[in-house]
Parts: sequence; C-alpha cells; structure tokens
Amino acid sequence: MATESANSNGAVKAKLVLQQCLSARLQVQPATEYEEAKYVEIGKGIIIYVCFMNGATEGIVEKMVKCALNTCLSPSEDPSATKRVSVLDLPGDVLIIPQATLGGTPKGKQMQYHKNIAKDDGKKLYSYFVSLCEASLHMSEKAREQGKHVCAGTYGNLQVFRTDTNGPFTHLLEF
Amino acid sequence: MATESANSNGAVKAKLVLQQCLSARLQVQPATEYEEAKYVEIGKGIIIYVCFMNGATEGIVEKMVKCALNTCLSPSEDPSATKRVSVLDLPGDVLIIPQATLGGTPKGKQMQYHKNIAKDDGKKLYSYFVSLCEASLHMSEKAREQGKHVCAGTYGNLQVFRTDTNGPFTHLLEF
Repeated sequence: MATESANSNGAVKAKLVLQQCLSARLQVQPATEYEEAKYVEIGKGIIIYVCFMNGATEGIVEKMVKCALNTCLSPSEDPSATKRVSVLDLPGDVLIIPQATLGGTPKGKQMQYHKNIAKDDGKKLYSYFVSLCEASLHMSEKAREQGKHVCAGTYGNLQVFRTDTNGPFTHLLEF
Repeated sequence: MATESANSNGAVKAKLVLQQCLSARLQVQPATEYEEAKYVEIGKGIIIYVCFMNGATEGIVEKMVKCALNTCLSPSEDPSATKRVSVLDLPGDVLIIPQATLGGTPKGKQMQYHKNIAKDDGKKLYSYFVSLCEASLHMSEKAREQGKHVCAGTYGNLQVFRTDTNGPFTHLLEF
C-alpha cells in the first residue's frame, strides 16, 4: 500500500478528504435535558475530513496542514480566472471534521479499522492539526483581514452535519 | 501505488467516496433563460462519489457496485442494533455523483489529473455504474417494496449540491 504522497516506507499514515462548500454547519455538542445542541458554522471555504492511521506523527500533521491549506483546490471568486486557488488565497473558512471511518478497509461485507491510530494518539494529533490550521489562517494577511476562521468538530463525537455547495470538488490526499 | 483493494498490477483504477445522508439534493441541469434549474433528490441513504482512472473496466465497475451497495456502512434504523447495515438492507436511497477531482495527485501547489480516464471512456463506465446500481436496487425486494431509488448526477457537469446528515461517515474504497 503506497501512493506518490505516502511516506518512504510505503504505508499511508493519514488521509484527508477535502470538499469545497458555500456554507456548512456541524454539531459540536448534542442537545441535553438542559441545553440545546451547539453548532459551529462556516461560510465559503473548505471542509477537511481528517483520519490518522498507525504511524502518524506531528511531522506528518505539519505536512498535511501545509498541503490542505496551500494546494489550489477552490474555484476562484474571480469569474474570469480559470485556475483554482488555495483556501488561504481565496480566502475562505475552514471546517475540520474528524473522520475515523476514512481509515477502513473492506473485508467481506464489513469495514475493518485495524490501521487506525489509537484514540488518544489520534486526539492529540487532531488537536495539533486544528491549532496549526488556526495559526496558518491567522498568519495569512488576507484571511485575517477578511475575518476568515477555522471551526472544528469534536474528536470521537457523532458529526451531525449540513452543507451546501456549488460543486463539491472532492479531493483525496494521502500522507 | 497500490492498496489492498487494488488490482493485481497495483495501480488504482477507480475510487469511491461514500457518505451517509438523511437527505441530499443535486442539480442535474443549470437554469437557462427559459427553464428553471433541475434537481434530483434522495432521502435517507448514501451518496456515492465516483472517479475512474486509467485502466478501469466494466469488470471493475461490477465490483465497485457490489462493494458500494453490499458493504455495511450505514447506521441501522433499529436503535438497539450496534452493527452497520448495507444500503440495500437499510434500505436507503442512492445518489451517485461523478467526481473526477478524486483522481488528482498533488504536485507542488497544483493538482494533476494525468491518471484520470479519458472523458468518453469515463462517461460509458459511469452510465454502466448507474445502471447496475438501479438494477441492484430493483432486484432487492426490501428496497423495491419501500420505493427506494437511485439518482445520478450528469457526467461532466458542475455538481451543485446540498446534503444533511446525522454523521457523515465518509468511507473510501479503491479498486
């Protein structure tokens, strides 16, 4: 198992699925007896689904964030431009969703998740991923000036979710 | 480049990204001067993003459909059941969206699509994929009795799209 973007020893350590959106809303806390459910919301930008596999490291997280935020995946705001731009150049919002199911491999009719990272390790890497995305948006003059922001789902929660897009443009990146 | 689920010569020939949804709506024809835009809509079920790469064949399409519709990816309707069920057993609707961007590999800041199948070949395989999904739902007594249906995006069109989910459960299958 190896891809061009995978590490030298060949195993995929992490996966990202990225989708453009016009808006997206994610539940970050379910409703309780006392409180309504809590949501985070973004406008135009990208949704990043994140999955860490065995062997993922902080170094890999740094590469993932750089690639996700700098690769030209989003249609430009300028209708005369045919080239895509990065979410930092758009600039757009970022919604990060932990998505352990991306690490599954089919065996018979079931999915198996042997290769997924242990939950505690995944949680740490996920927090690092989110904080690096926040720092990158903050360091981008364009994104900061236009008030673009990062929202993130809670690791291990059910991801109740809604999105609206003018073309999902789903991209897959493996590390 | 190879995965457990890839063919014997190692190259990935096709990719599917699958997401559960409560409902989804896809534009299949943009608005014109004379007509409003046309949409297809599904209820609870799965969204299947499809991408064919060089070397994809009708035989691979048959495997893809079997795997997508029979693998247990969807949370069961029965709250006491912890196991997932296939979309045929749920039973649920199916929305198929062509998604050439899934075949991209990053090179510097750009995505490259050298490995994607030629458009005409992709169009034929996509039609075959859609017709096999329709036939499978029709042959499933449960799906047929409960009026479950297949909707499909138009190959090569912009996929204007909205979805609502209680947990996207994004799965990746490579062939």
